[in-house]
This record gives sequence, C-alpha cells and structure tokens, in this order.
Amino acid sequence: MSYRAPVEDMAFALRQLAGIGRLSGDHYEAFDDDLIDPILEEAGKLASDVLAPLNQSGDEQGAQLTGDGVVAPHGFAEAYRQFAEGGWMGLAAPVEWGGQGLPRTLSNAVLEMLHGSNMSFGLCPMLSAGAIEALLAHGGDAEKKKYLPKLISGEWTGTMNLTEPQAGSDVGALKTKAVPQEDGSYRISGQKIYITWGDHDMTDNIIHLVLARLPDAPEGSRGISLFVVPKVLVNEDGSLGERNSVQCIGLEKKIGIHASPTCVMEYDGATGWLVGEENKGLACMFTMMNAARLNVGLEGVGVSEAAYQTAYAYANERKQGKVDGVDGPAPILHHADIRRTLTTMRAHTMAARAICYACGVAADLSDAAEDEATREAARLREELLTPIAKAWSTDTGVEMASLGVQIHGGMGFMNETLAAQLYRDARIAPIYEGTNGIQAIDLVGRKLSMSGGRAMDEMIEEVRETARAARETNDPQLGQIADRLVASADALREATDWMKAAMRDEREKGLSGATAYLELAGDVIGGHFLTKGALSARADNSSLRGRMTALAGFFAETSLAEAPGRVSGITRGGDSFLAESEALFGLS
Amino acid sequence: MSYRAPVEDMAFALRQLAGIGRLSGDHYEAFDDDLIDPILEEAGKLASDVLAPLNQSGDEQGAQLTGDGVVAPHGFAEAYRQFAEGGWMGLAAPVEWGGQGLPRTLSNAVLEMLHGSNMSFGLCPMLSAGAIEALLAHGGDAEKKKYLPKLISGEWTGTMNLTEPQAGSDVGALKTKAVPQEDGSYRISGQKIYITWGDHDMTDNIIHLVLARLPDAPEGSRGISLFVVPKVLVNEDGSLGERNSVQCIGLEKKIGIHASPTCVMEYDGATGWLVGEENKGLACMFTMMNAARLNVGLEGVGVSEAAYQTAYAYANERKQGKVDGVDGPAPILHHADIRRTLTTMRAHTMAARAICYACGVAADLSDAAEDEATREAARLREELLTPIAKAWSTDTGVEMASLGVQIHGGMGFMNETLAAQLYRDARIAPIYEGTNGIQAIDLVGRKLSMSGGRAMDEMIEEVRETARAARETNDPQLGQIADRLVASADALREATDWMKAAMRDEREKGLSGATAYLELAGDVIGGHFLTKGALSARADNSSLRGRMTALAGFFAETSLAEAPGRVSGITRGGDSFLAESEALFGLS
Repeated sequence: MSYRAPVEDMAFALRQLAGIGRLSGDHYEAFDDDLIDPILEEAGKLASDVLAPLNQSGDEQGAQLTGDGVVAPHGFAEAYRQFAEGGWMGLAAPVEWGGQGLPRTLSNAVLEMLHGSNMSFGLCPMLSAGAIEALLAHGGDAEKKKYLPKLISGEWTGTMNLTEPQAGSDVGALKTKAVPQEDGSYRISGQKIYITWGDHDMTDNIIHLVLARLPDAPEGSRGISLFVVPKVLVNEDGSLGERNSVQCIGLEKKIGIHASPTCVMEYDGATGWLVGEENKGLACMFTMMNAARLNVGLEGVGVSEAAYQTAYAYANERKQGKVDGVDGPAPILHHADIRRTLTTMRAHTMAARAICYACGVAADLSDAAEDEATREAARLREELLTPIAKAWSTDTGVEMASLGVQIHGGMGFMNETLAAQLYRDARIAPIYEGTNGIQAIDLVGRKLSMSGGRAMDEMIEEVRETARAARETNDPQLGQIADRLVASADALREATDWMKAAMRDEREKGLSGATAYLELAGDVIGGHFLTKGALSARADNSSLRGRMTALAGFFAETSLAEAPGRVSGITRGGDSFLAESEALFGLS
Repeated sequence: MSYRAPVEDMAFALRQLAGIGRLSGDHYEAFDDDLIDPILEEAGKLASDVLAPLNQSGDEQGAQLTGDGVVAPHGFAEAYRQFAEGGWMGLAAPVEWGGQGLPRTLSNAVLEMLHGSNMSFGLCPMLSAGAIEALLAHGGDAEKKKYLPKLISGEWTGTMNLTEPQAGSDVGALKTKAVPQEDGSYRISGQKIYITWGDHDMTDNIIHLVLARLPDAPEGSRGISLFVVPKVLVNEDGSLGERNSVQCIGLEKKIGIHASPTCVMEYDGATGWLVGEENKGLACMFTMMNAARLNVGLEGVGVSEAAYQTAYAYANERKQGKVDGVDGPAPILHHADIRRTLTTMRAHTMAARAICYACGVAADLSDAAEDEATREAARLREELLTPIAKAWSTDTGVEMASLGVQIHGGMGFMNETLAAQLYRDARIAPIYEGTNGIQAIDLVGRKLSMSGGRAMDEMIEEVRETARAARETNDPQLGQIADRLVASADALREATDWMKAAMRDEREKGLSGATAYLELAGDVIGGHFLTKGALSARADNSSLRGRMTALAGFFAETSLAEAPGRVSGITRGGDSFLAESEALFGLS
C-alpha cells in the first residue's frame, strides 16, 4: 500500500468547499478552473510515484551529518530534482520572478500531497516557500534579483532561522548578533536550533533567513532584524562564490520526520544582508510565519489522509473473525467498529482540508481581489482561519494517525508499518511554527478583537447560512444536519461573546479557555464545510454524493452534537485550576 | 526529573475512591488499613530509585537477541532481582504457595508504579501474574507444586502465548499443535508471535502458558487447550533439567517499550502439560485475560502519571516569555493554557486510577467476600469495569502522553526526552490484551446483558447517590458538580437503554456505537469517582482538598458537561456509515 493523492476529494474541497472559483478573473490571469484537475493529477503522480516510495526508506535511513555537511537519505536528491524540474516550487510565485502566478491555494493542495506522501520531504519546499514570501514582501531589489529566481525554480532551497535554546516561543529572547559592515553587509554570529533542512546535499546553495539582533538594538521582540544569509556567497554575475561562515554542527535525534534534517546551525561571522528595516524583523517573520502556519496545518491534513489510506487498505485486507453474511474469516473492514474509526478519520480529514483550503483562498483573495472591501474581508478571514487551520488540523493529524495505528492492531506498533511512522511524524506539527497553545492565544487574543470582532461574526453568519440552505432542501437528513449545525453555531456565538468579554476584563480567565475555544471553533467551522459538501454533492451522481452525506451526517451527530456541551469547558473550565493553582501546582 | 510514585494520591484513591476498606476482615486476614502506606512507600522506593533510572537507558539500548537467547538491557537483571527479593511478585498470591495473601488491589497499585517508572520492566511481572492466575485457577496439583512457588517468589517468570500471525483478535484461528504422549505430556509445535518477555536472561527459567490445538480438536475457539511449557524442564525434585524445545527466534522492532523483548517463539515439539480440561483453553485464557486487561489499564494510569510528572517538572523549569506578576522570563507553568493542559492530565489520570482500583476491589471482593450476594454483585461490577478500565485508561494513557509531549514543545519531539518515550510506549496499551474496540464490543455485547443488565444499573445508581451526597453538602461548588454528574448519569442511562435494545434488535447498529458508548461510560464513571474524591477531601486540611475539588470541578465542566451531547454519537453516529458503506468503503 502506498499513498495515492485523493484527487477527487481535493478537487471537490477546492471547488465546492473552499470556493476557489472566486479567484478566477481576479489577479490570477493564469488561473482557470480547467487547470485544477490536471495540476492535481500531475502533482499526484509525483507524490504517489516518486515521493511515497521514499517515505519509509527515508525514515529508516534518516538524514546524516558527515564531514561534508548533511546528506539526505538515498533517493531524495533525485526526487527533489524531479520536483524542481516539474516547476512545482514556483506554482504560486510571481511570473516576473519565474513563477507561474497561480493562486497559493493550488500550491497548498500540492503541498498537502507532498506531506501526505512524504512529510519529511515536504518540509523542504515548505521552508523554501517561507523564504520566498519573506524576500518578496521585504527584500530589496538586489536581494530579490539574487535569490528569488533560483529559489522559485527550486535550484536552491530556503530555511527559516528563528529558534535559539533560550528563545523558542519567546522569539524576542534571541541573542544571535548582526554587526554592520562598511559595505552594507552584516556579520552574523550565533547558534540557531531546530532548523529544518538547515543543510543538505540536494542543491548547490541554501538561502537562510535569519533573525538576529543589531549591537544597539532594543531588548525583546522590538529589537530583532531579519537577514538573508546564503550558504554559499553569490557573485554579482549570479555565479557561486566562497562558502559562507555558516554550518550545521549537529542533527537532532527525533521520534519522527527522520529524513528531514533538524539542524543546529552555527553562524560564525557569516555574511548576511538586511531584509526589511532594522529592528522590524518581527513583522517580516510574521510574513513567513503566517503562510508557514497554514502550510503546517496542511501537514496535519496530509498525514491524516495517509493514515486513513493505510488503515483502510489494512482493514480491507486483514482477515480476522467471522461476520454475518461473509463466508470464512472476513476482512476487519466488515466490523462496524472499524468502519466507525475509518469514518471518523475520513470526516476529520475532509473537515481539516476544507478549513485549510478556505484559509488559502482567503489569503489569495486578500492579495488579489480587485476591490478593497473584498480584500479586507478576505484578510480578516485569513487571519481568523490561520490559527485554526494550523492547530485544529495538526491535532487532527495526531489523532487520526493514532487511530490509524489502532486499526492495524499489533502491526501498527511495529517500525516497519507506515501507520507507526505517521504516528511518530505527525507529532511535531502541533509544536512548531507556534505551538497550538500559542495559536489558541493568537485566536482569542488578537483575531477575535480585530475590526471589532468582525471576522468571527461573519464566519458564524456564514455557518448559519449553510444551515439555512441545508434546511431549505427539505431533505430530512440534511435537516437533521442543519439542526446540529445551528445549535453548534449558537454555542460558538455564546463562547465567542464570553471570550471577547473575558479577554477584555479577565484576561487570564479568557486565556484559560483559549485552547478549548479553538477546538470548538474548528469543530463548528469544520462541520460547516462538511455540510456544504453534503449540499453540493446532492447534484452528483457518483459515490461522492453518498460519501459526502455520510461524512457530514457522522460529523454532525458526533462533533457538532457535542459542541453545545463544550461551552462550559471554555467559560468555566478554568475556574477550578485558576483558583487552586497553589494546591495543584505549588504556585502562590 | 525522575518518576516518583504519587503515594498520597494513590492511597487516597485506594481508600476514598475505590473503597479498599471493604476488603478488611473478609478473606484477607493479612490485610489491614495500616499496611497501605508502608507498602506504597516501599514499592515507591523501588520504582523511583531502581526502575525509573533504567527507563530511558533501557529504551535506548533495547532488549537484544543473541546466540544465547534474549539479553535484557543493562541493569534490568539486577533490578529484577531486587524486585523479586522484595517479595513484590507474591504480594497478592496465596500464602500456601509462598505469597502474602494480600488483596490484588494492592498489587495493582504496585503495578501502576512499575508501569509508571518503567513500563517495559513492569510487563515482565505482569505476565508472570497472568501465568500464576492461570495455574492457580486451572492447574493440576503437580503443575501447581512444580511452578507456582518459584513464579510467586519471582525466581522464575511467566508468559502468555496466544497470538499467531493469522490468529490475533480471533484467537480461535490458532494452529499450534499439541500431540498427546504416553506419559501424559504433550508435544507442542508451532509459532507464536508478540510474546512479551518470551525470553530473557534475568531468571533461570521461564514458564510459558501456551494455547494449542489437539489433533482431533473441533475447529475455532471451542477446540483450543491450554498448556504449561517451561523453557527448562523441571525435575521431580524441583531442580532444573534439560532445555525444552522452545526458543525465541526473533524480536519485533517496535516504536516503544524497547526494553521489553517482544518475541517470536518457536515451539518445536516442546514438552508441555495440559492446564485445565482439553478444549477448554478459552475459559482458562479468559482467567489470564481478565486480570491482564485490568493490568494493562494500569499501564495507562502509570504512563499518564509519568507524563504528568515530567510535563509538570518541565513547565516549572522552562522559562519563556513574560507573565504579569513575575519578573523576567517566567516558567511556562504560569501560563493559564499550560496549567489547563496539566490539569487535564491530572484529572484524567486520577479518574483512570480510580476506575482501575475500583475494578480491583471488585475483583478481590468477588473472590473473598463472605456472603454470596456480595460476591455476585462484586463479580458483576468487576465484569462491567474490566473493559472500561482497560480501554478508557489506555486511551487516556495515549492522550495524556501526547499532551505531555506538547508541554515540552520542541524538546518533546526529541528521543532523549522522557515525554517522547512515553508517547511511544503508551501506544501499545490500547492494542494488546484485546484491542479497545474489542473491549467496547465486550462491554455492549456481554456486560450490559449479564443478569438483565444489573451491573450497569447498579453503577448508574451509585453515580446518582454520589451526586445526591454532593448536593446535600449545600456547597455551591459541589452542587454545580452534582448537576453535571446527574446530567451525565441521565445521558449514560439513555445510551444504555438504547444500546441494550439495539444489541437485541439491530446488532450491527449497536456495535457501530460501541466505542463511543464505552468512552461515555468511562467519562461518567470517572467523573463519579472524582466527585467522590472532592466529597471525601472536604474533611482534609492539606492541599488534597483544593486539589481534589479542582480536579472534580474541571472534569465536571469539561468531560461531564459534554456527556449529554455524546448520546447521539452512540445512537445515531452509525446511521451514516452503515447506510453508505458502499460509497465510503466499496462494501456492498
């Protein structure tokens, strides 16, 4: 069994759930609905035929640190070459820099496939994408010209260098120094940790985006600046020059994503150039982070899909025990309990996919829509959905990977089983690019109060519209789903009102419910998209109709039905431990 | 940071939640309340000082298969010697065979510590306990005399040999053969897989309990018999004789419990003796399995506790970011979101512990109570709680271990971190000794219908009594908890009535809700015990009072508040995928 890109589900999610059609005719001259299927098909081949076969061997072999730097697992360099030559890195990059000028949403869908087939591999282009975004948004002309074409062609890769041992979630605590030189460059010195694909042998050069502090910089996050630091210096004519003073001095030993080198990077007076303004590195970082957060959410979707596929294949093949109506030992798929688990996996995967794609469409619209009002509404939607896409989808990834192990029984605990690898790989995604707790704090602390709370108000109104449309069909099954959706929208409304007041008047109490609030929001919005799916699929004569109805129905009777009961966990859950922090944790 | 047995919480759970006092004066002459604390203290020292220090080194080194059989990781043999010399193996074994004749509930508490400090180690005595139970219940005098004293002293260890490649959950499909010999012994031939501690170098002998099939046995589960097969044959005088024809021919490569050898065992005409009657092996197996299921539940409790402890220690030490009222970077424990996660871990751990201990007390009472009515009621309670103790606690183990990783941020993903090991180790427990899905099927298929459903009826009535007692305090906090408890008992009542009817009239529909039903039952019963804890702790002047009130309050506003909304997931969740199994899974 090997991962196959779920092209039909992805195309359906892009068109019917996320509404990618809104992007036609706007800024994306190159985009047309007809492109969706061929792009998904072609990327699907790369994922299934090239990347998936390297997933388990890459895990077993791992990236290795040698005297010559980091060596990627066998086959990765060739796979990367095919990825780059296919033009996949530049799908959503501007035409003027060699990209194809397509919506990022399409690129997101491709990234989901990369992650699903081989998450370790997928991280490399994901980090390049962050570097490209940062340079596009904040780089000077010289830096753009020097680095962008080769990053976008995939000839070089990019990295993000934020974390230091004492500066993780609190990036403002970083100590790496940048000393200005007379020629306008800076000397960068310090150690960065957890640098994904910080070194490798798949390309001739690696372009590091590095946060560092100028000698006279203010303390904290207002004193950090962003620099571009190439592994190999680039001459004025674009040819490669001397090796820069940056190297990988160690690889972390992780429980998963073994094929992806997680580097300790040593900058020893390396030459770098400022990106954006001095001391404004935080804003530049958020340019990288926002896209990266959605992209990490897509890891959750990809891993969930892969976990589903391998669990389904196993359940369809493994014979054990008797079942009514089947002669001899029956595949365990015939057991209702197994199908429940598989349905859970499929429904949550589709919901997470829809949230991520919708976030992508909002991001694209916020860049590209012709009128300001649409751009602003889309920007608010993007801001709102980003933490949910990141946290809800990656929690889903971990939970679905765990269910995938469970379907496999004892085999699921064996290293040789893909399900076991997915369980290990999935676990990093809720942690990096801002832990899911930080996403929740971002959601309740920033996103709910932007523009007077308009973003969530509009989202909830859209959920209600979907419920109304479902009711208007007069289909009893959709009516039942609509009832659940309305009740859950009411719950989200109540929790939102409480949360906004709490964050204003009793901030710690609000924060005590942040994670539970994000989970509820993800459930309701996920249920909204599945309901949209059931509605859209009514016109479909293929198995899609039954599938989407079943996924929406299942999600409605489980996650949505639980939503009203989850409000008190948000509004009152914190009372107990805030009052008893001394008895519980020795905090006075 | 190293695991320390939570002696205060454990003693509280034994006395106030599980009601171990009911065992005094019954069959357990040796048992007295005064024994609880010294036993927990002494076992706690073994766990903290001897076993915990070997947990991570054992994981790194792993058990190794050599030409001379399996070698346990460094230090394990000496630790095992200390365990055996401390008399821990025989704590609950009958005095006549060299045991101490104490309740198994105490032994369960000790086992929780073994699992919490070193789950790989804990598996070895856990399997010995299963062998002891089987021989005590079904062995002939000769076998008892030959094996029991040395198993109970810990001088030898025991194993359970059930699984074969084609016979996992469906144990009746096993093919291992047992051919009767003229001397009354049998020749056992076949291959068994997933045999925990199937071979090792910590003791001189290993006593295998093996399921096999006689030449003329009926097909399926009615044709299996149980045999005792020692690694080294035992002479009539008790001395060791020849090596038997059984050996470990391979070790599984697993994602966790690396220090515990998971063996492929080859029986090549090995000499064995029948235990119990021919073709009645299934009943004997269930003797081992029932105790083993509770013991696996305790793995979930132990791992959850360890995950909590290491997460708390990290949160208390790791400084990151600013918090109101703290100068400089504050330990992340000060963040409300971190405390919420830790409170979740603590509440669920305590709930799982109470469920397991209560199951243990019921098991002890069912053996030992003087009057038949008490024994029968206790037996029903044990039967009811066993699948819940196994499944709910081990799911909790996985979830809490995952939360523990999350608290650690990036460090949690590193092999060197205990949290990461716990995440890997915990994952097996929902799988073995009957997958959690099978536990759920056992609960709804057998346990709800025993004695007309009396077991669950009485349990729900007890939940209501706890709620009444909480209300009668007139304490508003306890009153609020009581309201949540009553609503959740109503939900469990409704789900139970539906489930009983469904299992009678629409079996597949019932089975489609089995797992969700077990989860609800675990939540409600867990909440009941936490409420009992808050009630009992009112009289306490230590931090226990605040702690237990907070845990009960938190659980009430989260898990219990969600309970009513979970009924539809049980009663209607299956409708969608049962109706659309073709569209979803290609099943016609």
